[in-house]
Amino acid sequence: MKLKRSERLIDMTQRLLDNPHTLISLTTFTDLYQSAKSSISEDIAIIKRTFEIQGIGIVNTLPGAAGGVIFTPKIKKEQALEAAQKICDQMNDSTRLLPGGYIYLSDLLGKPDVLHHLGKMIASAYEDQKVDVIMTVATKGVPIAQTVANYLNVPFVIVRRDSKITEGATVSINYVSGSSSRVEKMELSKRTLPSGSNVLIVDDFLKAGGTINGMRSLIKEFDSHAVGAVVFCESGVSGHQLQDYSSIIRITEINTENQHIKAELGNFFETHTFLEETH
Amino acid sequence: MKLKRSERLIDMTQRLLDNPHTLISLTTFTDLYQSAKSSISEDIAIIKRTFEIQGIGIVNTLPGAAGGVIFTPKIKKEQALEAAQKICDQMNDSTRLLPGGYIYLSDLLGKPDVLHHLGKMIASAYEDQKVDVIMTVATKGVPIAQTVANYLNVPFVIVRRDSKITEGATVSINYVSGSSSRVEKMELSKRTLPSGSNVLIVDDFLKAGGTINGMRSLIKEFDSHAVGAVVFCESGVSGHQLQDYSSIIRITEINTENQHIKAELGNFFETHTFLEETH
Repeated sequence: MKLKRSERLIDMTQRLLDNPHTLISLTTFTDLYQSAKSSISEDIAIIKRTFEIQGIGIVNTLPGAAGGVIFTPKIKKEQALEAAQKICDQMNDSTRLLPGGYIYLSDLLGKPDVLHHLGKMIASAYEDQKVDVIMTVATKGVPIAQTVANYLNVPFVIVRRDSKITEGATVSINYVSGSSSRVEKMELSKRTLPSGSNVLIVDDFLKAGGTINGMRSLIKEFDSHAVGAVVFCESGVSGHQLQDYSSIIRITEINTENQHIKAELGNFFETHTFLEETH
Repeated sequence: MKLKRSERLIDMTQRLLDNPHTLISLTTFTDLYQSAKSSISEDIAIIKRTFEIQGIGIVNTLPGAAGGVIFTPKIKKEQALEAAQKICDQMNDSTRLLPGGYIYLSDLLGKPDVLHHLGKMIASAYEDQKVDVIMTVATKGVPIAQTVANYLNVPFVIVRRDSKITEGATVSINYVSGSSSRVEKMELSKRTLPSGSNVLIVDDFLKAGGTINGMRSLIKEFDSHAVGAVVFCESGVSGHQLQDYSSIIRITEINTENQHIKAELGNFFETHTFLEETH
């Protein structure tokens, strides 16, 4: 059906947002809207400019017969900082403190807006790194893996600590759980991760770093490569030795006696790049 | 900053898509774009028409000082059927068969496009039912809960079969696992679900119905109400007695001897309404 420019812009915006990191050929649009290539190219130029000004992401056009348009979600540093600060404010709440210095996070990791922001900022930081798959460990890492996978448009895989019959053949490794210093087991379904994959690790909470080191070992067993590791919340008081990771939020004080908790922004914002200001 | 109509349409489309089921006041837009209310109203009318024609959803405007605009994702039945059929085709794959008549689904539930489609169709079916929260059970139900929660813009909660220190105080119930006829336990963090909530249950696989009945009991313990139950995949060969549920996909044949599996569309598409054809 023939659409007007205004209608095309709306529909194209929706299709690009819905299919990040996906090459859409110009022919797809000329066929869909029964419009000339020149009109579609002008539409794309308008969308490209608006997406950059508004901090939605980058729109790239590839020329030639195999060409088309690709949308890459990428936010500005100020947007990322503002969203992270809002999450941080919700963390500074002493009722989150649980026995043993653990912190209640399940409410935040079940909120669509928090997950949108986390997904956008993490995907934004890794958009140019050729990530093939997101890895996390069950259960609370799953929402973070899913939202990052969504914005990078790659699949995610879930490592489990318990065996499930529904996973088929698995590869398992033993790792030292840093917080309890016990040897534990984690496993991943053999068919979920092709060898040679570039894997981005995400998790909800970093205490001693054992789980992330475990996932790194598991990635090696699959002849794959860890591109990076991002955690939602890091305990800055547990004294872990983990290298090469970044955290969105960092807990700098936990006092279970007077029920005090203090959260700050993590090192994520120092170690990654964001959408450049264009004006 | 003052934007042109074309730029406003792009940015408004993105904001509406990013904030479903959220009232955005016209003043938000007039302030953002430094444009007159009449221009913004015309913009909204164009977006409303395009969203309906393209099967993106419904845009409603509420008049008055407390008024504004609300976007509700809602897809056409033909879009839902097409997406479900594509998923169904991927299910008809004998390598998914696992010992004991279980079926490997983890790859599908880790794919962003599959999850988009599932989220849109389930949210579309329940958009008018005042759902307050989505409930699922760890681990493989989580991706489905998250995508539905995303399109309905409500939080989701994860019921667990194992105790975790990071959940704080929990409420637990015992239930009969239908497939093994054993009494098992499931629990939910006390603070995640306010009493009086309207809860939509989702899960990945329905075999004997024990888990869903368990979640219904748990919802009662929280003085809340189950609005409905949707499963991604139902085993039509296990002879369960579950009532009041719907399934996206239904397995009608499993033969582990000659490695044969047959999947069809479930009853979801008979029991729910979709976006009406407008032309």
